[in-house]
Amino acid sequence: MALIVQKFGGTSVADIDCIQNAARRIAFEHKRGHQLVVVVSAMAGVTDQLIQYVNATTPHPRAEEYDVVVSSGEQVTSGLLALALQNFEISARSFQAWQIPIRTDHLHAKARVNDICTSLLEETLQQGIIPVISGFQGLSPSGRMTTFGRGGSDITAVALAAALGASRCDLYKDVSGIYTADPRIVPTARKLDRVSYEEILELASLGSQVLQHRAIELAMSYRVPVRVFSSFEESTGTEIVHEDEIMEKALIHGITHTHSEAKITLTQVTSQPGVTAEIFGALADAGVTVDMIIHNNLESRDLSPLAFTIARMDLPQAQATLQKLKISLDFGDTIVDQMTAKISVVGIGLRTHPHLTGTLFRTLSQRGIEILGVATSEIKISILVHQDFAELAVRSLHSAYQLDGETAEKPMLYAVKA
Amino acid sequence: MALIVQKFGGTSVADIDCIQNAARRIAFEHKRGHQLVVVVSAMAGVTDQLIQYVNATTPHPRAEEYDVVVSSGEQVTSGLLALALQNFEISARSFQAWQIPIRTDHLHAKARVNDICTSLLEETLQQGIIPVISGFQGLSPSGRMTTFGRGGSDITAVALAAALGASRCDLYKDVSGIYTADPRIVPTARKLDRVSYEEILELASLGSQVLQHRAIELAMSYRVPVRVFSSFEESTGTEIVHEDEIMEKALIHGITHTHSEAKITLTQVTSQPGVTAEIFGALADAGVTVDMIIHNNLESRDLSPLAFTIARMDLPQAQATLQKLKISLDFGDTIVDQMTAKISVVGIGLRTHPHLTGTLFRTLSQRGIEILGVATSEIKISILVHQDFAELAVRSLHSAYQLDGETAEKPMLYAVKA
Repeated sequence: MALIVQKFGGTSVADIDCIQNAARRIAFEHKRGHQLVVVVSAMAGVTDQLIQYVNATTPHPRAEEYDVVVSSGEQVTSGLLALALQNFEISARSFQAWQIPIRTDHLHAKARVNDICTSLLEETLQQGIIPVISGFQGLSPSGRMTTFGRGGSDITAVALAAALGASRCDLYKDVSGIYTADPRIVPTARKLDRVSYEEILELASLGSQVLQHRAIELAMSYRVPVRVFSSFEESTGTEIVHEDEIMEKALIHGITHTHSEAKITLTQVTSQPGVTAEIFGALADAGVTVDMIIHNNLESRDLSPLAFTIARMDLPQAQATLQKLKISLDFGDTIVDQMTAKISVVGIGLRTHPHLTGTLFRTLSQRGIEILGVATSEIKISILVHQDFAELAVRSLHSAYQLDGETAEKPMLYAVKA
Repeated sequence: MALIVQKFGGTSVADIDCIQNAARRIAFEHKRGHQLVVVVSAMAGVTDQLIQYVNATTPHPRAEEYDVVVSSGEQVTSGLLALALQNFEISARSFQAWQIPIRTDHLHAKARVNDICTSLLEETLQQGIIPVISGFQGLSPSGRMTTFGRGGSDITAVALAAALGASRCDLYKDVSGIYTADPRIVPTARKLDRVSYEEILELASLGSQVLQHRAIELAMSYRVPVRVFSSFEESTGTEIVHEDEIMEKALIHGITHTHSEAKITLTQVTSQPGVTAEIFGALADAGVTVDMIIHNNLESRDLSPLAFTIARMDLPQAQATLQKLKISLDFGDTIVDQMTAKISVVGIGLRTHPHLTGTLFRTLSQRGIEILGVATSEIKISILVHQDFAELAVRSLHSAYQLDGETAEKPMLYAVKA
C-alpha cells in the first residue's frame, strides 16, 4: 500500500462533471488499496475572475487582501470534491491550509512553504479518510492567508508529498505530459516519457508552464517522484526522475520560449565590486526576480553596460527600485525593452557536447535572427531575440536538434500561458 | 466616539460598484470619528450559485462540506471591501471567522455562536484599522468551518455588536426598512420608523425575511440597538428598540405571510403524557423545527388528532422521523398538506385589546376564507389558510386593521423570499 498525492488542476475540476471525473480517478486508486492525499486547484477561470474583481476594486491591491480573495476558489473545489467522494461512498474531508496548517513566510502572493504539520493529516489517513486539500494556499506567521503564485497548487502537492513521505506525486493537468516544444508552434513536438528534474526545472521556468517552477525545485530537493498526467485521457504521462536515472543517449530534450519578460539595460555601471550586488540585492528586496544577466565586465574599463531580464509584471517595482538606486550609484541610462522573447534549448548533453551549442548559433544565423543576449547553465542555453522571431526560432531549433516526431500527440491539449 | 457595527447584505455588495458604494458609506461614518467594525455577506447570487454546485455534486450533501463551499463567498467580499477601503486611504483588514475566532457549536449549516474572542479585533481597532469581517461563518469546536443558515450575516453583525459592546448595529439591506406588510401584495403598506424586538422577531420568523430571526433574538438578549437601512437610498430606516420604549398608541404593527411551511396531521395520538413530548423531541433531534402546534387534547378521549407546521424543506427528515416513531407510538395516519400559507397579525396591543382578535376572525369570515389552524402568542396571532387565499387574506387584514398608508415607499425594494 503506497501513499500517493494526487493533484487536480483547474481544468481537471472545471465544472461539476470534471469534479465527478476526478472523484472517479481517486476512487480507482483508492480501490487499488493506496492511501491517498488529494490536492485541488480552483475551478478553471475562477481565479482569473477573482483577480479581475481585485483589479476592478483598486489599481494598487495590497497582497494581503489579494490573497484572501484569490484563495477562496480552492476552498470551493475542496468542499465539492469531498462531497463527490462521499457520494461515491468514500470517506473524505476537505482541509484548508490554515487547518493543517501549511505554514509559509510573510511574502503574500508569492509565499514559500516553511513547514507543514502532518499530524492532523496522518490521523485522518489512519481513520481511512481521504484528505482533500485546497492547493495554492498557506498560513503566514501572523495567521493570515497567503498564496503561492499562479500554478501554486503544484507546490502544495509536492510539499505535501515531501512532508508525508509519499511514494509518488501525480499531477493531473490539461496536457498529456511534457513536450519537446509547444505543439501549437511546433506541430511535430513529441511527448517525453521521462525527463529529469533539472531539465523540467529549466522547461518550467522558461514558459512551458506545464509545471510550477518551485514545485519542481521542491520535488528535486526532497526527491519526490512526480508524474504529469492528462485528466482527460488515459496515457502514461511524463515521469520526472533524477538526472542519474536517465541514460546518456538523449541529449537535447526540448525547446521552450516565453514572451513574458522585459530586458533592462543600465548603460554605464561602474566596475567596482559590490555595485552589481547592490543593484540585484535591492531588486530582490523589492520582490523582483532577475532571470538572465548579461554583463561583460572588462577590467580595463571603468564603466560597462549591465543588462538583465525580469518578469514584465515586475517592471513597475523594478523601475521604482532603480530610480532610487540611480541617485547613489549613477549607472547612466535605464533602457527597457519589452519586445523580447526568450528561447531556450534544454538538455543534459548540452555542456558535454559543444557542437550542440554551435548548432544553436548556426541555425539562428541562417534564419537571420539577431541574438540580443545569451545565458547558459549546465543543461540549458537561453537566448533573447526580438519577439517577432520567437516562433520561427523555436521551430527552426526543434528541427535542427532533430526533435521532430511523426506528429504531435493531441497538441490542442498543450497549454502555454505567456 | 461611538463603536458601530455596520453590516452590508448581499445586494449591498453585489458587484464592484456596490462594494465601492459600501466603502463610501463606511468612509462617511469613519470621518465622523466613529470606530467601525464592518460585516459583509457574499456578493448577491454567489451563495445561490455555490449551493447549486453542492446540489449538482451530490443529492445528499454532508453539512460539514456544504459549509466549506458556501462560506467562501463572504471571504471574497471581505477581501474586496478591505481593498476598496484601502483604496480610499482608510486602514482596513479582512477577517475570516476562524481568524477571530467566532466560535460556534457543531451544528453545521445552522450553527449557533458560542463565543467571540474580541482581543484581536480590539487590538485592530486600537491601531486605527477597520476590521472587515466575513459574515455567516463560524468555527466549530473541532476546528471546522460552520455557517449560520441563510441571512446569517445578520447574526455575525449582532453577535459582534454584543461582544464588543457596540453602541449601534446598522444593517444595510435592499429594503428601506420594515413594513407593515409585503408592499408587493399590499401596495398601501407603510414603513415603520420604530418597532420592538419582540414584534420584529415575529415579523422576521414569519417570512418578511428582512431580518434573520436569530439575529433579533441575540439583539434582544444583549440589548443591541439595531437599525435597518437601505444601501441604495438615504432614509431613516427602521429602528428596533425594546418594547418598553414604544408608546402604547400603536397596536397592530404588521401583517405577514409565508408560503414555505407544510402542515402535518397525525390523526390519532394517544393522550398519555409524554407522547407529544416524544414526537416533538424526536423531530428536534432530527433538526426539524416545529412552528405552529394545533392540539386539542380532550381528557375524555383517548385518541385525538395532533397537527403542526414545519418548514417544507424539512419535510423529508420529518417524514422519516415520524415513520420510525409510528412503530412504537402508533398515531394513526400521517396527513401532509403542503398547500398552506401562514398569515400573522403582529402587534403589542393584541392580547390586551380582545376586539383585535375579533377583527381577525370577522374579516376572514366575511371573505369566506377558511381557517385551517390558529396559534397565538403575546404579540401575534397566526392563522393557517389555503395558500390560494393568502394574498387576499393579507390585504383584507391590512385594511381591517387600518394599516393602509397613502402609498407605500418604494415597494419594489421590499424583498420577500418564501
